[in-house]
Amino acid sequence: MSEAVTNSGYLKRKVYWWLERPDRAATGPWLLEIALIVLITLNVAAVILETVDSIYTRWGLALNLFEGFSLFVFVVEYAARLWVATENPSYKTRAAWAVSPIAIIDLLAILPALLYLFFPVDLRLLRTFRMLRLLKLTRYSPALGMLLAVFEEEAGAFFAGFFILMVMLIFAASGAWLAEHEAQPEAFGSIPAAMWWAMATLTTVGYGDVTPVTVAGKIFGAAITVIGIGMAALPAGIIASGLNDQLHRRRASLEREFRKALEDGDICDADEAVIEAVRKQLGLSRRAADHIRNRVHAETMSQADHCPTCGQTVQKGKP
Amino acid sequence: MSEAVTNSGYLKRKVYWWLERPDRAATGPWLLEIALIVLITLNVAAVILETVDSIYTRWGLALNLFEGFSLFVFVVEYAARLWVATENPSYKTRAAWAVSPIAIIDLLAILPALLYLFFPVDLRLLRTFRMLRLLKLTRYSPALGMLLAVFEEEAGAFFAGFFILMVMLIFAASGAWLAEHEAQPEAFGSIPAAMWWAMATLTTVGYGDVTPVTVAGKIFGAAITVIGIGMAALPAGIIASGLNDQLHRRRASLEREFRKALEDGDICDADEAVIEAVRKQLGLSRRAADHIRNRVHAETMSQADHCPTCGQTVQKGKP
Amino acid sequence: MSEAVTNSGYLKRKVYWWLERPDRAATGPWLLEIALIVLITLNVAAVILETVDSIYTRWGLALNLFEGFSLFVFVVEYAARLWVATENPSYKTRAAWAVSPIAIIDLLAILPALLYLFFPVDLRLLRTFRMLRLLKLTRYSPALGMLLAVFEEEAGAFFAGFFILMVMLIFAASGAWLAEHEAQPEAFGSIPAAMWWAMATLTTVGYGDVTPVTVAGKIFGAAITVIGIGMAALPAGIIASGLNDQLHRRRASLEREFRKALEDGDICDADEAVIEAVRKQLGLSRRAADHIRNRVHAETMSQADHCPTCGQTVQKGKP
Amino acid sequence: MSEAVTNSGYLKRKVYWWLERPDRAATGPWLLEIALIVLITLNVAAVILETVDSIYTRWGLALNLFEGFSLFVFVVEYAARLWVATENPSYKTRAAWAVSPIAIIDLLAILPALLYLFFPVDLRLLRTFRMLRLLKLTRYSPALGMLLAVFEEEAGAFFAGFFILMVMLIFAASGAWLAEHEAQPEAFGSIPAAMWWAMATLTTVGYGDVTPVTVAGKIFGAAITVIGIGMAALPAGIIASGLNDQLHRRRASLEREFRKALEDGDICDADEAVIEAVRKQLGLSRRAADHIRNRVHAETMSQADHCPTCGQTVQKGKP
Repeated sequence: MSEAVTNSGYLKRKVYWWLERPDRAATGPWLLEIALIVLITLNVAAVILETVDSIYTRWGLALNLFEGFSLFVFVVEYAARLWVATENPSYKTRAAWAVSPIAIIDLLAILPALLYLFFPVDLRLLRTFRMLRLLKLTRYSPALGMLLAVFEEEAGAFFAGFFILMVMLIFAASGAWLAEHEAQPEAFGSIPAAMWWAMATLTTVGYGDVTPVTVAGKIFGAAITVIGIGMAALPAGIIASGLNDQLHRRRASLEREFRKALEDGDICDADEAVIEAVRKQLGLSRRAADHIRNRVHAETMSQADHCPTCGQTVQKGKP
Repeated sequence: MSEAVTNSGYLKRKVYWWLERPDRAATGPWLLEIALIVLITLNVAAVILETVDSIYTRWGLALNLFEGFSLFVFVVEYAARLWVATENPSYKTRAAWAVSPIAIIDLLAILPALLYLFFPVDLRLLRTFRMLRLLKLTRYSPALGMLLAVFEEEAGAFFAGFFILMVMLIFAASGAWLAEHEAQPEAFGSIPAAMWWAMATLTTVGYGDVTPVTVAGKIFGAAITVIGIGMAALPAGIIASGLNDQLHRRRASLEREFRKALEDGDICDADEAVIEAVRKQLGLSRRAADHIRNRVHAETMSQADHCPTCGQTVQKGKP
Repeated sequence: MSEAVTNSGYLKRKVYWWLERPDRAATGPWLLEIALIVLITLNVAAVILETVDSIYTRWGLALNLFEGFSLFVFVVEYAARLWVATENPSYKTRAAWAVSPIAIIDLLAILPALLYLFFPVDLRLLRTFRMLRLLKLTRYSPALGMLLAVFEEEAGAFFAGFFILMVMLIFAASGAWLAEHEAQPEAFGSIPAAMWWAMATLTTVGYGDVTPVTVAGKIFGAAITVIGIGMAALPAGIIASGLNDQLHRRRASLEREFRKALEDGDICDADEAVIEAVRKQLGLSRRAADHIRNRVHAETMSQADHCPTCGQTVQKGKP
Repeated sequence: MSEAVTNSGYLKRKVYWWLERPDRAATGPWLLEIALIVLITLNVAAVILETVDSIYTRWGLALNLFEGFSLFVFVVEYAARLWVATENPSYKTRAAWAVSPIAIIDLLAILPALLYLFFPVDLRLLRTFRMLRLLKLTRYSPALGMLLAVFEEEAGAFFAGFFILMVMLIFAASGAWLAEHEAQPEAFGSIPAAMWWAMATLTTVGYGDVTPVTVAGKIFGAAITVIGIGMAALPAGIIASGLNDQLHRRRASLEREFRKALEDGDICDADEAVIEAVRKQLGLSRRAADHIRNRVHAETMSQADHCPTCGQTVQKGKP
C-alpha cells in the first residue's frame, strides 16, 4: 500500500514535470507543449472552417472526429493538471488551482462540449464557446504577461478614457441626431441610431455607410471628429506610458538581482541560473538583461576604485 | 434657539458626511454614491431612449414621471450640497462652491429642466441639455482627474497640434479643390466643400462618400494622407508623453510622503492613513504604491549600513 | 541732420518695440499682435469663402476690397520688419533677417498678390498662394516651437519610418495587383493604380471605394493591413518618444537656471524674471516650472542639513 | 607574381574603400553611393511603370534595356562586394558575408532575373521579385537601424500584441457571424467571410464594403470596435516605449564615450573622431550629442570643485 502511494507520488511528480516544465531545458515536456499548442490552434481552425458550408458538407465527419479527439485530450489534460496541482508551489491545493484564471479557461474549453453530450444545445452557440479554447494559448507567452499587467495596472486610466469616450459618443450622437434627424430619418432618426455613426467616426473606423448630409451635420461632424482624434489616441498614450513604466520596474527588479549576485565579488553559475529565471519570468529580452549587466558591472568596477560622485578612494570589501 | 443652531450644525455635518464622504470606509455614504451614479446613468439612458419614437409612444408617461423624479432628486442634491459647502475645507463659503466647475455642472444638470417648467422651450434642445447630467459622473473617478490634468498641462502642445492640423486641413482642401473641382463640382466645388473630404482623410476616418477621382487628385490625396498620419498621431504622442510625466511627478510626491513617514524610523498607522489618502488623491494604483514603498525601504535599509555612493559607514539616527 | 538721425533711431526703436515686443508685459504691442492675428485669420477665411460661388457672386467686391486692405497692411508690416531688423540682436543685418524662415514666409504672403498687379496669373493658383499667409501665425505660438523641434530632431527616425512605409506601400500594391488585376482591371490594373488602395489601407483611412474582391486578394489585403497597423503607429511612437525627450531636456535646462539662481542663497526678482523668460522660451507650462522649483528647493534645503546620500552633516556656504 | 598579388591586394583595398566607405568624408565613394541609390530607386520606379499597359506598349524596349543595364550593375556590385568581403573586419571570410542579411538581399535582387535568362518564368512574378531591390536601400539609413532594433528587441511584445489581435479578430468574426449570417449570407455566411469585416474594423480601416445591418450585429460591432481601439493602439505604445528605451541606452553609450574621453582632462581631436563615429553608428542626432556633451562637461566641472551630493571639496586629478 505504501509502495502504491510512493508510486503514485512518483507518477504525480513525473506528470507535473511533463505538464508544467519547471526545468525549462527538458526536451520531452517542450515537445508536449508544442503538441498542445498545435492541437489548440488546429481546433480553433476547425471551428472556423466548420462554419463554411462547402467544407462542412464535405469534411463534416472528419471535423467531428477531430473534435471528439481534441475534447478527449483536453479532458485528460484538465484532469491531469487538477491531479498534479498539489505539486505546484503556487497553488498547493486542488481547489486553489481550480479557481485560478488559467484553470477556469481550461474548464470553459471542455465544459460546453461535455454538456452537449447530455443536453441538446444550439450548435452555433456551442461553436462560439469552443472558440474559448484559443485562450488556452495564453499559458505559453511570457511577454503577454507584461501586456496584461499593463492593462491591469492602468485599469483606472483605461476606465477613465472609456468614460470620456462614452461621454463624447453620447454628445456626438445627440448633436448628429439634432442636425440630421429630419434629412435622414432612417440613419439619424433617434439617438441610438445616430450612435452607430458616432461610434464609427470617433473610433476613426469610418465605414461610410452613414454620413451626415446637411451642412450643419457636416460642420458638427467635422468638429467632433477633429476633437475625437485625441480620444482614439488615448489608449495608445496609456499603453505607451504603462509599458514604459512596467519595463522600468522590471528592469529595476533585474538590476537588484544582479547587484545581489555581485555582492560577493563575482556572478557564479548558480547566480546566473537565478538571474536567467528572473529574466524569463519578467519577460525581459536577453539584450536588455545584458545591458543591465554591463551597467551594474561598470558601476561596481568604478566603485572599487573611487566613489563616482565624491571621487574619494574607497576600498571594496570594507565599506 | 441655541439648541436649534446646534441641531442644525449637527445635521449639516451629517449631511456633509453623507454627501462628500470624507471618511472613505463608511458604507452608508458609499451606498448613496452608488444610488446617485445609477440614477445619473438611468437618466441619460432615458433621454437616449426617449428619442426612439416607438419607445416614446409606449413608455412616454413613465419616462416623463422618471424625469420628474430625477429632477426632484437633483434639485434636492444641489440644494443640500450648496447648504453644506461651508463644511468643506476646500471651499469654505457657498459662493466659492457655487462657482467651482463641478457645482456649475450640477446647476446645468437642473437649470434647463427647471426653466422648462416656466417657459416653453424646444423639447429636442432640452433633451440635449439633459445630456449634460452625464458630466455629473466626473465627480466619482480619481483616474479621470489625472487624464484631465494631462489635457490641462499639455494644453499648449494640444493647441499647437491643433494649429498644425488646421494648416494641413486648409492646404489639403485647397489642393483637392484645385485638382478636383472640375471633375466633381458637387463634392469639391469650393474649399469649404473640399474640407469635408480633407477632414475625413487627415483624421483617417475615411468615410469614402467623397474621394478624388482624377489622377492629380489621387496623387495629391495620397501624398497628403501619408504626411497626415504623423498628424493624427500627434495627440497620441502628446498624451503618452504627458501621462508619463504626470505619473513621474505623482510618484515623486508619494515617494516624498513615504520618506517623510520613514524619518522617525517606522511607518505607523497614522502615516499609513495619510499615505493611503495621498495615493487615492493622486489616482495611483496600489501596486505602484507598493513598488515605491519597497524602493524607499530598500534605500533606507542600505543607508543604515553605508552610503550607496561613497561606501562610507553611516550610523542611522545620527547623520 | 543729426537730429533727424536721432529721430529716425528713436522711431526705429519704437517700431521695433511695437512689432517684436521684447518687453512682454506691454499692452500696446499685445493689441497690435492680436489685431494681426485676427487679420491673418480673416484673410484665410476670405480666401476659403471666395471659392464658394454663391458667396463670391454676392460679396465679391467686399472680399476684393478686404484683400486689397490686407495686402497693404502686410506690405507695410514686411517693410517695417525689414527696416527694424537691425535693432534685433538675433539678426543684426537686414539681409540676415530677410533669409530667415519667418521672413521668407512674410515675403511669400505678399509676393504672389503683388506680382498679380503686374502680370495676369491664374486666379485659382493665386488663391492657393494666398493661403500661405496662414503660416504667418507660426510666429505667435511658443509650444509650436517644441513640436517643430521634435520633427527636426527626429527627422532621421521619421525618414526611416517613411522609408518603411514606402516599402510596404510598394509591396502591398504589387501583391494586390498580382491578386486582383484580372478581377478588377479598373482599380488594380497596374501597380500605380493599386497604390491608391494600398495607401488608403496602410494609413487606415480605408475609403472603401476600391477593395479586393477575390479570396487571394482579401487574404493578402488582411495580412498586409494587420502588419500595417504597426506602420501607421510609427509616427505616434516617434513623436511620443521625441516629445518626452524634448521635455526632459528643456526641464533640465530650466532646472539649471533655478540652481544657478539659488547659488547665492535666494531667488531675487531679477532671477525670477530671467527664469520666467527662459520658461517661456522653452515653452514649458507654469505648473511644470513650479514642480521643478519645489524639487530644487527641497534638495537645496536637505543639502543644507546633510548630504541626502551619505547622511553626513554639511554646512551650506562652505562646501 | 608577388607584384600581381600586391596589385590585387591594393585593388581590393581600393574597391573596398569605394564600396564600403570606411572614411566617411571621402567624396568619390559618396558619389558612388548616391549613384547606386538613384539606380535602385529608378529600378523600382521602372518595375512599377512597366505594369501600366500604355507605358509598357510605348517604352517597353527602353525599360527592358534599362533592366538589362541595372542587372549588369547589380551583378558587378554583388561580385565586387563578395570579393572585398575579406577586407571588412566585421565578416573576414566571404562565406560569412554571403550569409549576412544585407548580402542575401543583394543576392535576391539579382537571382530571379538571372534565373529568367535560363528558365522561362512568369513575368508578373518576376516583376514582384525585382521589387525586392528596394530592400537594397536599407544599407544607407542609420536611423533605420534604430527602428529595426526596436522591432527586434520588442519582438516578444509585438508577438503578444499580435496574439491579442488574433484572439479579438476571431471573437469579433464569430460574434458577427452569429448575429448577421441570416441577414447577410453573402458577407457573414461563415466565420472566414466575417473575418474580412472584423479585420477592417479592428484595424480601424473601415472600408464599409461590408457592415452589420441587424440591431444585434450593430451593438456587437460597436462594442468590439470600442474595445478594439485599444488594440490598434498597442503597436504605437510598444514602439513608443521601445524607441524611448533604445534612445536612452544609446545615449548612455555615447555618454560613456564622452566620459572616457574626458578622463585625461580634455577632448582631443582623436577623441572627437571616435565620438563622432560612435554617434553616427548609434544613429543619434548631432544636437542630442551636444546636449550629452554639455551635461558631461557641466558635471565634470562641478566635480572639480566639490561633490554634488556631499558638498565636500574634491581636488580633480587626485581622486
